Amino acid sequence: MNHGTPRPPVAPVRSGVPDHGRVPKYYLVKAQLEDLIAELGPGGRLPTEADLAERHHVARATVRQALRDLLLEGRLRRQGRGTVVAGPKIEQPLSLASYTEGVTRQGLRPGRTLITLDRLPADPPMAQRLAVPEGEPLWHLERVLRADEERVGLESTYVPVARVPHLEREFDPEGSFYGYLRECGLRLGGADERIETVLATPREALLIGTPPALPMLLLHRRSRDAAGHPLEQVRTLYRGDRFSFTLALHAPDAD
Amino acid sequence: MNHGTPRPPVAPVRSGVPDHGRVPKYYLVKAQLEDLIAELGPGGRLPTEADLAERHHVARATVRQALRDLLLEGRLRRQGRGTVVAGPKIEQPLSLASYTEGVTRQGLRPGRTLITLDRLPADPPMAQRLAVPEGEPLWHLERVLRADEERVGLESTYVPVARVPHLEREFDPEGSFYGYLRECGLRLGGADERIETVLATPREALLIGTPPALPMLLLHRRSRDAAGHPLEQVRTLYRGDRFSFTLALHAPDAD
Repeated sequence: MNHGTPRPPVAPVRSGVPDHGRVPKYYLVKAQLEDLIAELGPGGRLPTEADLAERHHVARATVRQALRDLLLEGRLRRQGRGTVVAGPKIEQPLSLASYTEGVTRQGLRPGRTLITLDRLPADPPMAQRLAVPEGEPLWHLERVLRADEERVGLESTYVPVARVPHLEREFDPEGSFYGYLRECGLRLGGADERIETVLATPREALLIGTPPALPMLLLHRRSRDAAGHPLEQVRTLYRGDRFSFTLALHAPDAD
Repeated sequence: MNHGTPRPPVAPVRSGVPDHGRVPKYYLVKAQLEDLIAELGPGGRLPTEADLAERHHVARATVRQALRDLLLEGRLRRQGRGTVVAGPKIEQPLSLASYTEGVTRQGLRPGRTLITLDRLPADPPMAQRLAVPEGEPLWHLERVLRADEERVGLESTYVPVARVPHLEREFDPEGSFYGYLRECGLRLGGADERIETVLATPREALLIGTPPALPMLLLHRRSRDAAGHPLEQVRTLYRGDRFSFTLALHAPDAD
């Protein structure tokens, strides 16, 4: 059962209890902790690992595994030396709007930390993606995304230098890149996106401050300008325990 | 580096080598295996664990951890007693089109296996989601999704019995539910979707035939009919190692 989703009427799909087969012991503890999480509510503090082991008559390693799953899923989070119930995931709309707009809509304060601003020649695949000649100079802008000072993602943008020649001098790397593009008179006409789940690499885990191997949502975006010409190639990694994506679909003619 | 994505020009974002901090040994092996994977190509067979351990001068447990990551990410798959390089992930368009249409477009043969077809009273959250009175009878249809006979997902649909009263008698559970809705004169006008990443529960892992704790893509959908009234609530779990979602975005006025 995931928070924020309706509880199915009788037989919960994600109840985790196989109709046949063996249920691992940690999973039973996890199911009981989920009830406790619902009771405590966001910010509620969990008993210690030792207390939970005693309460559920299991080994501490079993409790630890259940807690680990719940932490990975964003149901719990560490606070100081304790563990508390996490709030709902941040809902990021899948739209042309920027990170700033998505996070602000959730009542959070967006922020960014510059990791890299490089000038690189386009290699063949990137040249093809951006429809520029091989070797064309590109900016590579890599930033950690923050929400209320918490590190929540890592964004990596490739854009031809010719499009924004003064980026290095003019652009505030803490600010919105799309805001800067607008100031440069560049408007987005559309984008192709691809979403997958990947495990955080050690470097990413270090930069974002997550446990390594945390499942992440990876969004690949190629944006086009108003004339339909490729403008930027972006890879954004969002913490899987902190983000979900939302989307409204409409039938072409509602028919 | 994920397959199907462009290789960044010089300093790869997902290279996994922190600028500072310690890189786990298994991660170095993983990076070397990624080169081997690129060399072998889809279907190529990997050396045995013992051979790889000898070749990379590491313990078998280290090789096993690197292989485990690559299996979870869908870069490798088990074949009989061996391990082979996996093909690209299935790209499922985020649209009102059905699973059938998405998978067929990839040149794969879609299939479904019925797990549950139940009649249940709507509990308060589900009644609210579907805009029906509490206790209203609902169908709960749960099916394993297949692509070319491989189990790739688990779909759970809730729909008011009043909308499709003869579902149990008329509907072929191996077939397209949206196709059946069309036959009943019901057309989709739109849907709200939410996407997150979750770990497979033991029950799900059993039904889909994956290792437990495999990262999955979970899609929640509430569809509306042409008049805008809620029609169904669906939760579809896709194997994170086998699926990605794609989406085309357009500026409202391309400006």
